[in-house]
Formats: sequence, structure tokens, C-alpha cells
Amino acid sequence: MLIVIFYIAITVEAMTAALAAGRRQMDWFGVCVLACVTALGGGSARDIILGHYPLTWVGNPWLLVLACGAALFTIGIARVVHRLRWPFLLLDALGLVVFSIIGCNVALEMGQHPVIVIVAGMLTGIVGGILRDVLCNDIPLVFSGELYATVSALTGIIYFGGLMLELPQDLVIIGAMTVGFGLRVAAIVFKWEMPRFVYDKDLR
Amino acid sequence: MLIVIFYIAITVEAMTAALAAGRRQMDWFGVCVLACVTALGGGSARDIILGHYPLTWVGNPWLLVLACGAALFTIGIARVVHRLRWPFLLLDALGLVVFSIIGCNVALEMGQHPVIVIVAGMLTGIVGGILRDVLCNDIPLVFSGELYATVSALTGIIYFGGLMLELPQDLVIIGAMTVGFGLRVAAIVFKWEMPRFVYDKDLR
Amino acid sequence: MLIVIFYIAITVEAMTAALAAGRRQMDWFGVCVLACVTALGGGSARDIILGHYPLTWVGNPWLLVLACGAALFTIGIARVVHRLRWPFLLLDALGLVVFSIIGCNVALEMGQHPVIVIVAGMLTGIVGGILRDVLCNDIPLVFSGELYATVSALTGIIYFGGLMLELPQDLVIIGAMTVGFGLRVAAIVFKWEMPRFVYDKDLR
Repeated sequence: MLIVIFYIAITVEAMTAALAAGRRQMDWFGVCVLACVTALGGGSARDIILGHYPLTWVGNPWLLVLACGAALFTIGIARVVHRLRWPFLLLDALGLVVFSIIGCNVALEMGQHPVIVIVAGMLTGIVGGILRDVLCNDIPLVFSGELYATVSALTGIIYFGGLMLELPQDLVIIGAMTVGFGLRVAAIVFKWEMPRFVYDKDLR
Repeated sequence: MLIVIFYIAITVEAMTAALAAGRRQMDWFGVCVLACVTALGGGSARDIILGHYPLTWVGNPWLLVLACGAALFTIGIARVVHRLRWPFLLLDALGLVVFSIIGCNVALEMGQHPVIVIVAGMLTGIVGGILRDVLCNDIPLVFSGELYATVSALTGIIYFGGLMLELPQDLVIIGAMTVGFGLRVAAIVFKWEMPRFVYDKDLR
Repeated sequence: MLIVIFYIAITVEAMTAALAAGRRQMDWFGVCVLACVTALGGGSARDIILGHYPLTWVGNPWLLVLACGAALFTIGIARVVHRLRWPFLLLDALGLVVFSIIGCNVALEMGQHPVIVIVAGMLTGIVGGILRDVLCNDIPLVFSGELYATVSALTGIIYFGGLMLELPQDLVIIGAMTVGFGLRVAAIVFKWEMPRFVYDKDLR
């Protein structure tokens, strides 16, 4: 089930990236690159940082084809895609949660420290979006108040904590996904935001 | 011959990066860093992503000296460099094609999947320019319609395809270089562009 | 002693990054990420480029906790922090010098080429600040005239040169730190700057 949602998540991430590329009037190649970077960049950053080779998409290059295909499909349906706001948001929330759990798993299998397990989940969940925003010349959205990274961290903590308590893995996955997904959707519906740090003096 | 063109390509990439740094009024150190990142960043990204250590310039640090030397030389001849537009464009096109073939070769020697071979060529050819634009705080030029990445992909496909057909390697290299170089020059002369994806609605 | 200054330097880097995040009104999570990237990004880039695994903070995750703690502490004392300009500048200069020496040491222990030893020191000293500026959507400050990278290079050269002359390591460290720190402070006091390269023509 995780694998199926993983593929769905990559597709959705690629499609939202394609829309971001379209807003900057990139060409079709740029759309594909931005889609691949956004959908696969989080897992790549995690694997490079942990020294976990080969990277997921190098071992399974069809993921690149999937991401590019999803991006080009988005160009085709661009005229109706704004009607899909809610499906997009829900699938994106699902993807965030699944990416986080998969990232924790990779670090767990490598026998990493608990802090690194959670961080690996967060890297997998959010770095793709950070790279997308850097390539689009924006300050990363994930730093600007949205309850996104927090959801990733919480999902990882519940997942790791559940495994430590030796609960059955299926139950732990479902529990972590439910809490993470619920929190993310609630944050969108009720417009919950992280507190901001506003500092307007110049130190230098 | 590939090696000679490889060194020429690094020099040319470093020089164009130095001009980009000059347009942003960077200091001499920034000019050198931008030159090294642009000239060597593509190969570095490829090697880090494939886990292919040591990186080219770590094993052969004189490449750093070459890139910095080319950058500082550019500062010296800045007043006449605008007369060199065509030599620059032609050598840059040659460099793109050679970088792509070298990148494919690295992945081939590692026994990677055909898709990854082409991608390794493209990473080598275009990531340097992407990093240059990110450090200059621009949206990468390569995403904005220029027939640049397409040339890199086509060069890699011809090269890989030719080797699969067991044609002699010299012939395949010359063939891939001719087609790639010709297409790039034609794209500059006739202002061919990739189609753009323009999307102006906000999903969120 | 190096270790103690290393921890102080990470704390200071994290605190200056938190102020940069506050100027862009990032949320608390963004503040922590920017602090970690700035404080630990230089060493991470060095380790990834040299293939030196595990990364420092992956092997010692408490560094992440230290950087996040320093960042959140900065939010708490934000109202008085502008009075701490000089302590910040001095500790930042000390950190730059120590980061550079530690970076050289890592490359030396790997048996790298002398050029790479110096470059490893510079990567450790300055990449954190470059990543901070890229994530804040600025052109990196370190390219804009400040005598910062030069200090890092000079520190590394003195350190490496001293070791080559088989001087006692303690003496070499103290000598390299004194010269590097003195030059950096002098550059701040006397507003020394690197010469800039100004180029205003367009090649294309």
C-alpha cells in the first residue's frame, strides 16, 4: 500500500511542480526538470546526505519517466486543473506523510540515530519543495508559516515511537498516516500557521 | 581529442561565468567561485548523484586552477570580450556536446541503466549553468526556451544508440558531436525555441 | 580547544542565520532549518564532495539540537541582540578561522592533494553562508567584496604550510588562527574590500 501511495505522491508532486513552472513560463524541458527535482529531490537529498547509494531513481529510472509523464500530462489538462484544487491538496498531504514514513524507514534500515531517523523523514518530505522554490527564485514556501514540516516531523515521531514500542508495523503506519494526514488537512481547513519570527534590525 | 575539447570547454564555461559575475559586480573571489561552479558543477553533480568518487576536480585539482585562471584572464580582457560573441557561442556549443558525451561515458562505465546514461550526460552538460544562475539569483536560463538541454539529450541518445549498435566508437563520437553541435548552432542562428508552458492561475 | 571553539562557532553561525530568517519573517521551523543549514552546511558540502561519510552531524546529531536551540534562543533575545554586534562579529571571525582549519584537517587525514586541502577548508568556512543566502533569495554576501573567503584561504595556507615545515601542530594552529582572525578583524575595522569586477555589456 505504501508503494502505491508513493507512486501517487510522486505523480502529484510532479504535477504541482509543473504548475509552478507554468506560472514562470518555463519551456517543456524546464517543466520536466522541475517536476523531477520536486518529486524525487527529497529522497535524493536524504540518500546523498546519508551516503545511501544508489539513489532511488538511479536504481529505478522509471520514476523519472513517471515524473516527466505526469508533468507533460499536466500541460495537457492545464485548462481544467484549477478545478482540482481539493484533490491536489489531499493527495499532496497524503504524499507528505508517505514520503516521511519512507524516509524514516531508509534511515532505520541503516541503523541511524533516532534524531537522524526523524530528520531523514523530514528531508524526504520537504526538500523537494525547497529545491522547487530555489529553482523558481522564491524563498521556500515551507519556511513561511505553513504547517508542513511540522506534519512531517510529527509523522516521523509517531512512526518511530510506535516501532520502538514494538507495536505491529501495519498499525503504526496507519496510525502515523492518520494523525499526520489529519493534522495537515486540519491546518489547511482552519488556516493554522506556525508562529513567525519577525526581526527588522540590521546587525551589521 | 575529447580531452582537449574538455579542457577548452571548461575554459569557455569559466569565462562566460566570469562575465555573468561581472554583471553582478562580484569581487574577484566570487568571480573564481562562480567560474569553478559553472565549469565543474555539472560533472560534480553527476558524480555525487551516481556515487562516483573521487569527483573529477578532486582527483585532478589543476582543473580548479584552470577555471580560476580563465576567470581572472577574462577580467583582464573584459574590454574586448564583447567582440568575441561568436567564438564564445561556438565553443560553448562544442563544450555542451563534449560534456554530454563524457557524462554518458562515466555512467556507461558504471554499468548504469540506459535512461541514467542519458541523464548523466544531461547533468554534466547543463547543471553547471543551473548552479550559476541560482547563485546569481536568476531563474535558470536553461528552463526558458533555449534549445540547450534538448541538444544534450539528443547527443547522448545518438552516442548511446551508436554504441549499442556496435558501431566503432570514434565514428559514434564524431556523429553525435556533429548532430548535437549542428543542432545547437542552428538553434542559435534561426532562434529555435522550445515551446513554453504558460499557466497563470493559482491553485492555492 | 579547537572543539570548544567549533561548538561556539556553530552556535554563533546558527544565531546569525536566525536573525537573517527573522528579517524575512520566516516561521520557527524555517528559522531552525536556516540555522542548521548555515552552521552545518559547510562541513556537509565538504564531506559530500570528498565522499567523507558519515557527515559530521549525522554521526553526532546533537549538533542539530545545538543549532536549533541556538536559533530558538535567538528568537527569545531578539530585542536585545542588536547590542551584541561586536561579540557576534568577533565570534563569527573566530568561527570562520576554526571551520577552515577543521576542514583542512579532514582533507589531510584523507590524504588529499594540497590544493584540495585548502579548498576543503574554504568549503567548510564559507558554504554555510552561501546556502543561507541562496535560501534567503540573495546573491551570496561572500561574493560581494567582503574579505571573508580570502581569510579562509590564507588560514588554510598557513596551517598547511606550517605542517609541511614540520612545525609543532599546536604552534601552527595558533599561528594560523592569529593571522586569520587578525586579518578578518582588521578588514572589518578598516573596511578592507576585495576588488570587484564590473562588467555591464551583454555577450548574447
